[in-house]
Amino acid sequence: MVARMVTAAPHRFSDEQRHGVYRAIYERRDIRSRFVPEPLPDDVLSRILDAAHHAPSVGLMQPWEFIVIADAGVRGGVREAFDAANRRAAGAYVGERRDLYDRLKLEAIVESAVNVCVTCDPTIVRGHGLGRQTMPETALYSTVCAIQNCWLAARAEGVGVGWISILDLDAIRRILAIPTHVVVVGYLCLGYVSAFDPEPELATRGWEDRVPLAEKLHFDRYGVADAARAHALAQLSETAGRGR
Amino acid sequence: MVARMVTAAPHRFSDEQRHGVYRAIYERRDIRSRFVPEPLPDDVLSRILDAAHHAPSVGLMQPWEFIVIADAGVRGGVREAFDAANRRAAGAYVGERRDLYDRLKLEAIVESAVNVCVTCDPTIVRGHGLGRQTMPETALYSTVCAIQNCWLAARAEGVGVGWISILDLDAIRRILAIPTHVVVVGYLCLGYVSAFDPEPELATRGWEDRVPLAEKLHFDRYGVADAARAHALAQLSETAGRGR
Repeated sequence: MVARMVTAAPHRFSDEQRHGVYRAIYERRDIRSRFVPEPLPDDVLSRILDAAHHAPSVGLMQPWEFIVIADAGVRGGVREAFDAANRRAAGAYVGERRDLYDRLKLEAIVESAVNVCVTCDPTIVRGHGLGRQTMPETALYSTVCAIQNCWLAARAEGVGVGWISILDLDAIRRILAIPTHVVVVGYLCLGYVSAFDPEPELATRGWEDRVPLAEKLHFDRYGVADAARAHALAQLSETAGRGR
Repeated sequence: MVARMVTAAPHRFSDEQRHGVYRAIYERRDIRSRFVPEPLPDDVLSRILDAAHHAPSVGLMQPWEFIVIADAGVRGGVREAFDAANRRAAGAYVGERRDLYDRLKLEAIVESAVNVCVTCDPTIVRGHGLGRQTMPETALYSTVCAIQNCWLAARAEGVGVGWISILDLDAIRRILAIPTHVVVVGYLCLGYVSAFDPEPELATRGWEDRVPLAEKLHFDRYGVADAARAHALAQLSETAGRGR
């Protein structure tokens, strides 16, 4: 094969399109408290779901399923399941941390426009097992990629998404009639919002801080941190414009 | 709280930015055979890694680590580990399917510009366990979201990414000195490419077909397919422009 020199990255998006991608990534938020009582138009929901459906999947397995949940009775049941799980989860915290936990709003099951439960059937033959013999967990990972696509497409549409993980999965399975061989990967609340906060709520409320990128970088082997190089590399995205 | 009417989705991106997001989602490919021998500039790598680092994470846990692998010796070792795992994986196929498998190029470890191994440390305290008592797997899922962010940002930069899942994880762990409590989530090959194919290679080569979105939709409960409604909803994203 003849080596081709790539000059100025010919397949790179236009600045404005690239800015859109980075905006979606940086301005995406996990929404729980800012949903407005506005329905989500079907065409917008359809585009968001189709974006999810075009995630990468191991062996082109496409193991995901999307349960679109509008029914108030079903949502009420899920909300009750959340409340029970959340009471148990809160019990793990004491003192100031418990006070902080109790002030966090951690779901929007009933007041969001629509819920979407994303499941994975790791037993399907589709994909013919390619890549799954060594890493069977990649079926689940593919489904998570679908959720992240959904989240980013939603942000571009001005739609907020909250991923609820404080759930009793047995209860969810019962309420949504999900067979035992199907894995519940994510339970999402979607809808228009009054605002997208500039930073994650867990950061502004003092639950947890952002880690600098430089602290996440290793070179050639795990634990080879090379602080100067990591800092220099991380610095480039800050100064070269991350699209904000 | 006073209900606010949202007219025309005020937080929606401009058409061009929105198009950028959908382009990244629809034109992202799992690249194995189209890398060109061109280095990846540090500023581009930095933006891609920072995009990954801005993934959602449960409790703002940020459990991911990125091992940036340029060293030829390390990559050679990983390539050998791939070859061994791939020989074992190939043994699962017979006849035409085996011929097809043997014709697939499934890695680009040595010829891509750089490799990035993305790991997850599910044992860290950061995030204070929020959301992980009920679903501890969300630490891994957060790390997968980081990989999908990386993949989409790379596409916007004109950079291809291939996710290699045919690997002996014990060998990878040994080669990259990854501690036993740290999970190897994804091994990625990154670099500029000669082309992004219009469709996934596994589809054009006949390994597997795309499933229509309508077949993935359930309403209110699993198994409630409502074919007419599913078809109508799925149709909207096709006609209303998915940004291709």
